[in-house]
Amino acid sequence: MTSELTFPAPTEPFSVAMLLYPGFTLLDLIGPHQVLSGSAKVHLVAKTLTPVSSDSGAQLVPTCTLEDCPRDVDVLFVPGGTGTFAAMQDAELLAFLADRGARAGHVTSVCTGSLILAAAGLLAGYRAATHWSTYDVLAALGVEGVHERVVVDRNRVSGGGVTAGIDFGLTLLARLRGEQVAKLTQLVLEYDPAPPFRAGTPEQAGPELTAQAQALLAGLARPALEAIAARAGG
Amino acid sequence: MTSELTFPAPTEPFSVAMLLYPGFTLLDLIGPHQVLSGSAKVHLVAKTLTPVSSDSGAQLVPTCTLEDCPRDVDVLFVPGGTGTFAAMQDAELLAFLADRGARAGHVTSVCTGSLILAAAGLLAGYRAATHWSTYDVLAALGVEGVHERVVVDRNRVSGGGVTAGIDFGLTLLARLRGEQVAKLTQLVLEYDPAPPFRAGTPEQAGPELTAQAQALLAGLARPALEAIAARAGG
Repeated sequence: MTSELTFPAPTEPFSVAMLLYPGFTLLDLIGPHQVLSGSAKVHLVAKTLTPVSSDSGAQLVPTCTLEDCPRDVDVLFVPGGTGTFAAMQDAELLAFLADRGARAGHVTSVCTGSLILAAAGLLAGYRAATHWSTYDVLAALGVEGVHERVVVDRNRVSGGGVTAGIDFGLTLLARLRGEQVAKLTQLVLEYDPAPPFRAGTPEQAGPELTAQAQALLAGLARPALEAIAARAGG
Repeated sequence: MTSELTFPAPTEPFSVAMLLYPGFTLLDLIGPHQVLSGSAKVHLVAKTLTPVSSDSGAQLVPTCTLEDCPRDVDVLFVPGGTGTFAAMQDAELLAFLADRGARAGHVTSVCTGSLILAAAGLLAGYRAATHWSTYDVLAALGVEGVHERVVVDRNRVSGGGVTAGIDFGLTLLARLRGEQVAKLTQLVLEYDPAPPFRAGTPEQAGPELTAQAQALLAGLARPALEAIAARAGG
């Protein structure tokens, strides 16, 4: 019995560095992690090797520190989360991303991770996706938002909110390893989604549920908008 | 800024115990964890508090041991993984599941987690789902398999392979908290899936990819079938 499932690859596994920070959304990261890890060597990168708490409370263990992360990776990835806006003001994280992102094969994100990439200067002149509730923040950062599930602009690949990470991962895997490996992975992960409700976007959910969700999420984006406005005015 | 996002609930959060074991599939667990954690107190339960390695290598930190897990939980949950067949032969894990499962409000699984529930005697007389590649093992354990994304049979709720955990979580949340809370959660998680390919089931993927996937997965199920046959013959 094997303990890890790896897929036959035409070449060496590609390398992925995924950033962990306090308050990241676990599913933003685990969706693509599950999709890519059969074909890649994945580094879970954080400031220290201490387990990092996600915004649903569960803790994931980093595999390397910012310093120890390989300098050249095929994929640099940033998840979103309720901790996004703190991460956007963390000079050490932004310097790490700017450095690795300058040489990475692909610079990528899911959910509000694109806001952190933007704060690190990695999306200037690129189009990107983010969580549906934060396109105003992306615009305030000077990045053109595109309301699509996965946005590919040259070597920038970004997914929408949370669950978009699976679609993002398969799209990226197809670019890096071809459609057959992506489809094989989709089959192994039995990815034939069947949501029990139609409520995954504001259009589907309708105005009442959207207002409720916005009320839940507004407290998360407001500090970032205020900080951006303060910098612009100062 | 809040560090955890919780949804308004009509009553106290419900309690969920999720079993961690070596070689569990991270996305099996994190899909439902992300869906339920806004409305529930989730316990990540393992033999010890040492981080547990998933079958994609990443390690998750338990929040309590088998002994410390609350004796009465609203939801008992077991993920699948390449470690499933070892877990099916682990008397300590099976005794824990049989004990908590006897009183749990719902006894649940995603992917091959249902095989572990069956090994613990918790699916006798119930219908269940599992990963598409292991319905023969479920049958060998005397459980009627149903090839659906989410199977609800009285208080047993089981999802299909890996990514079915999100659909499973929303279905379970709707039972426990009503459709409006489930839809609000779906909107916050932007769950409007858009798979880039149609390859999530053997029917969609076709015979060639299915044979490749079966070759990858066969080594995982064979030891279980052999052990069941040996017991039946012994």
